[in-house]
Amino acid sequence: MAEAEKPAALPGIMPDRLPETARPPEDFNPIAIAKDLLRVTRAGALATIDRNTGHPFSSLINVATDADGSPLILVSRLSTHTANIEVDPRASVLLASTGKGDPLAHPRLTVIGTFANVAGDAPDAARVRRRFLSRHPKSKLYAGFGDFSFWRLHVVSAHLNGGFARAADLKAADVITNLRRY
Amino acid sequence: MAEAEKPAALPGIMPDRLPETARPPEDFNPIAIAKDLLRVTRAGALATIDRNTGHPFSSLINVATDADGSPLILVSRLSTHTANIEVDPRASVLLASTGKGDPLAHPRLTVIGTFANVAGDAPDAARVRRRFLSRHPKSKLYAGFGDFSFWRLHVVSAHLNGGFARAADLKAADVITNLRRY
Repeated sequence: MAEAEKPAALPGIMPDRLPETARPPEDFNPIAIAKDLLRVTRAGALATIDRNTGHPFSSLINVATDADGSPLILVSRLSTHTANIEVDPRASVLLASTGKGDPLAHPRLTVIGTFANVAGDAPDAARVRRRFLSRHPKSKLYAGFGDFSFWRLHVVSAHLNGGFARAADLKAADVITNLRRY
Repeated sequence: MAEAEKPAALPGIMPDRLPETARPPEDFNPIAIAKDLLRVTRAGALATIDRNTGHPFSSLINVATDADGSPLILVSRLSTHTANIEVDPRASVLLASTGKGDPLAHPRLTVIGTFANVAGDAPDAARVRRRFLSRHPKSKLYAGFGDFSFWRLHVVSAHLNGGFARAADLKAADVITNLRRY
């Protein structure tokens, strides 16, 4: 590669390669950024495995968090992504902050785990419903439909891409709050 | 479910269940909306299969289209999503339009297929590079890096969720332009 192609700095750009080859700034706190994205992002991209073809399937979802930070979704049994997680509950959710300019210049978090259905008569069902509808009041319009139900992502790991030279692989314990400690 | 929970209409809301249970309006043209999303959306969510765990992995990408509409991406070999498609090239890309209010009220397209690397000395490499960098001029900063390369999605199908009571499964031929006809 010609040396002239290498700029001295890449303002506002964060190609994925740089985290591996450059040292992030000392004030980079990936856990804090990850927790922030987890708690404030209202919509995300869900990745599931298509039950018919095995292809990874990307779809749009509204998302909230349970008390410990675990992502919550409200989906219809008639939709593709729900049919997928009923067969294989492995999934991930991309939570991206938005803003001006290149989307890749803004932090985003991929939360990886396994979905479990929150049964309507489960002890935590009322809390899950309250938390989700508090963040998404318009969802009350269909939350009561018989084919809709809540699912919680049991997080196993996460990947933060926080910007130029700022990426980190995180453990579940880095982003999920251990409520048993309190 | 109590009848009172069913509103007469769901303005601005489009739960996934409705496409299966309601008839879309007569002026609904899923192919036109899908092609529009494919050609104008600049960033999307890529779903790949994690090469280590098998989990579906969702990540943010900038996207352009080849002449026929096939999605093009520019990614680093050092990134997770690239390592994933090198092992299993099956993927999908979610292209969502944005706007005010509920994100689920806006149309989005999932394009499903298989990625193939565009070799730097391939006959179509110059066209792919030109088209991608024309849409993403800032990517010129790192497009020349040795670990970056272009990939093209060979589309096998697509799923459009266009709004309330507006969804459709599409074939590749619905969204990809057959250039041999011209």
